[in-house]
Amino acid sequence: MASKEEPNRNSKYDPKKPHITEMPITRQNWYKHVNWLNVFLIIGIPLMGCVAAFWTPLQWKTGVWAVVYYYWTGLGITAGYHRLWAHKSYSARLPLSIFLAAVGGGAVEGSIRWWSRDHRAHHRYTDTNKDPYSVRKGLLYSHIGWMVMKQNPKRIGRTDITDLNEDPVVVWQHKNYLKVVFFMGLIFPTLVAGFGWNDWLGGFIYAGILRIFFVQQATFCVNSLAHWLGEQPFDDRNSPRDHVITAFVTLGEGYHNFHHEFPSDYRNAIQWHQYDPTKWCIWLWSKLGLAYDLKQFRSNEIEKGRVQQLQKKLDQKRAKLDWGTPLDQLPVVEWDDYVEQVKNGRGLIAVAGVIHDVTDFINEHPGGKSLIKSGLGKDATAMFNGGVYFHSNAAHNLLSTMRVGVIRGGCEVEIWKRAQWENKDVQYVKD
Amino acid sequence: MASKEEPNRNSKYDPKKPHITEMPITRQNWYKHVNWLNVFLIIGIPLMGCVAAFWTPLQWKTGVWAVVYYYWTGLGITAGYHRLWAHKSYSARLPLSIFLAAVGGGAVEGSIRWWSRDHRAHHRYTDTNKDPYSVRKGLLYSHIGWMVMKQNPKRIGRTDITDLNEDPVVVWQHKNYLKVVFFMGLIFPTLVAGFGWNDWLGGFIYAGILRIFFVQQATFCVNSLAHWLGEQPFDDRNSPRDHVITAFVTLGEGYHNFHHEFPSDYRNAIQWHQYDPTKWCIWLWSKLGLAYDLKQFRSNEIEKGRVQQLQKKLDQKRAKLDWGTPLDQLPVVEWDDYVEQVKNGRGLIAVAGVIHDVTDFINEHPGGKSLIKSGLGKDATAMFNGGVYFHSNAAHNLLSTMRVGVIRGGCEVEIWKRAQWENKDVQYVKD
Ligand code: HEM
Ligand code: HEM
Ligand SMILES: [Fe+2]
Ligand SMILES: [Fe+2]
Ligand SMILES: [Fe+2]
Ligand SMILES: [Fe+2]
Repeated sequence: MASKEEPNRNSKYDPKKPHITEMPITRQNWYKHVNWLNVFLIIGIPLMGCVAAFWTPLQWKTGVWAVVYYYWTGLGITAGYHRLWAHKSYSARLPLSIFLAAVGGGAVEGSIRWWSRDHRAHHRYTDTNKDPYSVRKGLLYSHIGWMVMKQNPKRIGRTDITDLNEDPVVVWQHKNYLKVVFFMGLIFPTLVAGFGWNDWLGGFIYAGILRIFFVQQATFCVNSLAHWLGEQPFDDRNSPRDHVITAFVTLGEGYHNFHHEFPSDYRNAIQWHQYDPTKWCIWLWSKLGLAYDLKQFRSNEIEKGRVQQLQKKLDQKRAKLDWGTPLDQLPVVEWDDYVEQVKNGRGLIAVAGVIHDVTDFINEHPGGKSLIKSGLGKDATAMFNGGVYFHSNAAHNLLSTMRVGVIRGGCEVEIWKRAQWENKDVQYVKD
Repeated sequence: MASKEEPNRNSKYDPKKPHITEMPITRQNWYKHVNWLNVFLIIGIPLMGCVAAFWTPLQWKTGVWAVVYYYWTGLGITAGYHRLWAHKSYSARLPLSIFLAAVGGGAVEGSIRWWSRDHRAHHRYTDTNKDPYSVRKGLLYSHIGWMVMKQNPKRIGRTDITDLNEDPVVVWQHKNYLKVVFFMGLIFPTLVAGFGWNDWLGGFIYAGILRIFFVQQATFCVNSLAHWLGEQPFDDRNSPRDHVITAFVTLGEGYHNFHHEFPSDYRNAIQWHQYDPTKWCIWLWSKLGLAYDLKQFRSNEIEKGRVQQLQKKLDQKRAKLDWGTPLDQLPVVEWDDYVEQVKNGRGLIAVAGVIHDVTDFINEHPGGKSLIKSGLGKDATAMFNGGVYFHSNAAHNLLSTMRVGVIRGGCEVEIWKRAQWENKDVQYVKD
């Protein structure tokens, strides 16, 4: 593997001592398994926010600002952390890059560097033990459990983040992460509401704390809901799924089966009617000259994936149906034996070199008894295929369930030709 | 063909003289092409009814009765004429048979015998010139034109109606058709409203004339709308289509693609949520002992038809996509030539015995430049297929568009084995 970097490692980590996650959870040690800092950040602070909200009246300006800032910080994650840095699905000019690093920080989901490393591992090792938020460990685990419980850094699959280590914005944000989080997560939204319309406390509670809670829960849904709810139009060998509900919650990251199949595409939704505001923003930025080099997978390749998956589903359906005895499992019968058996009263009919037992069907034949009887003991290939009546697909399918033998040599004319040939009495047609 | 019957022939018809339909329509003879009796029955009377309705107030009891009688006479056509007599998709005890022959007559669409003969020809020769109401001649023609214009009896395909000629109810209705039409079409609905709530004129206009008009137009939709609007889940080689709107208009005859594929099935809709009141009635009658021997196609055959049609659609999609140069059109390259060319700077990579030119893709590779470069000039089959990374379907599809050659002997190990063998230095592995 390319990268030797382990951005999660800190000074307290000693690779020689067994990691806490390698021990079973017991009554005595359970609290050591919990990541208390994350519990405080993800669950504690929002709870305090809810309580504080009881005493803090919501002004409508603050409400609007909280929603606007919710979308900005959400976009920081989806358009910035995810599509720009983790997947390099497009390139951004410096101002946009700084903006996304700033508002992305305000969503309080870790630094770009840490987030992207985990996310690349999630794509490279989807659903395996090396996937940091594998849904195979449960929906709750993929949503929040992987942050609430301590993780063994050795478990998470390695990925290459040399490109991020060369990006000054990413490196700066990583080094100054705590400052970024406090400023963009809490101080900046408070300042706007405070200087704007003098609602300091409301700005802090609503546009700060509670907004963080909502934006976190929404983006966490990409790891949980998007691997659990919906269709799999491109590949059903692993968990990612497409659903419009997930898309609504996650600013368009809900077409996740597509995304895992084509991660370097700047779009998650490819049809015009699907909801992907993140894509719309990136496209708008490209028109404004802030973004460039938007990557798209060729639609030919996308459609190929869709066709293959449909084919797979169809093959599964097909395998459940009865298509009649396969030709190679049928006994080979001489033409004369076939004719003989019909004379003895069996309701046999030869179509396309195959003998069918239609005894029980003669009375049910929609074309009448007499017509079907006229084919018994003969080569009815032409009659059946338009000579008398051009039978439907359904009739062909029904016929194949009645197979009882194949005729040596194919059909009647073959038999006849062989007879001629054996008598050395062959006459070839000349052009 | 089985039947020598031609139920449409009348005494004025002389097979030796050319029929009017064999002459072109001109200014002088156009009126001879029109079937004036049908124009009067289908268009004239309803128009008079509309005018009369202006002077006749509608009582609510008469309104309800007109709707109820509309459903009865509609059922006479769908459950009687169509599913019972034309298709023999179930059998009816005498009382039900008489009821259906009576109310079916009240719909004023010809005798059972005439109607079924044409309908069987419609199924046997669908969309051809022998189809009495082929939609290929236009939507309006299939709806009403075929009745308004004279028809050449020689044109309509022959069918077998010996079974109907043996059915006393059918024969009686055919012989006494005019009486049946007048009584059931006009007199009976008038009597009910007259004796019931003393609305003689209203009964005649609303439950008689106008009800006839609606029931005719609705059932005509089976020949027009059902061959024009909707999906083709079972066979798209001819015109019948499935649509819920047609089903609503025609008491459930709207799943017409299914019906043309499985005409002997007493159902037109096969899913519980589809609208087919005709089916529900037949089922109810069977529970009451009035109907028996309800025919159903095996669901295995039905699903086979569906799978085949889906497969056909998928194959059409597949054919429009670029799947890369087929293997048999690629040049065969020696292993050493392949290695040589990479040394000379070409970005070639061998996967599964096929050489791919990835020169332009190296910089775009989502797994990074170095990893893809490590495979150049080697047999990268294992690396590509999980040895280093288990690539997605999409990656395989993309790879196949980059094919430029096949390696003689397959893959590297084959080359190596042959070399061993040519040096007569072979060592077989023993079990
Ligand atoms: C050589 C013999 C046969 C002849 C000449 C013949 C002729 C016909 C004709 C004329 C019809 C049209 C009925 C109508 O719509 O009025 C028909 C329908 C039908 N026949 Fe045959 N038939 C023959 C053998 C068979 C056999 C062996 C089967 C067994 C599967 C079969 C299955 C059907 C079915 C299912 C229909 C309903 C319409 C359709 O699905 O196409 N027939 N046949
Ligand atoms: C032998 C050489 C190769 C190696 C070792 C290799 C390795 C990798 C790795 C590790 C990834 C994962 C990137 C991530 O998600 O972090 C990747 C992704 C990808 N590679 Fe390669 N690769 C090789 C050759 C190729 C070639 C020849 C193609 C040409 C089609 C290709 C197409 C892709 C694509 C489309 C992806 C995106 C993820 C996916 O669709 O699976 N790779 N590769
Ligand atoms: Fe995912
Ligand atoms: Fe992703
Ligand atoms: Fe039809
Ligand atoms: Fe029919």
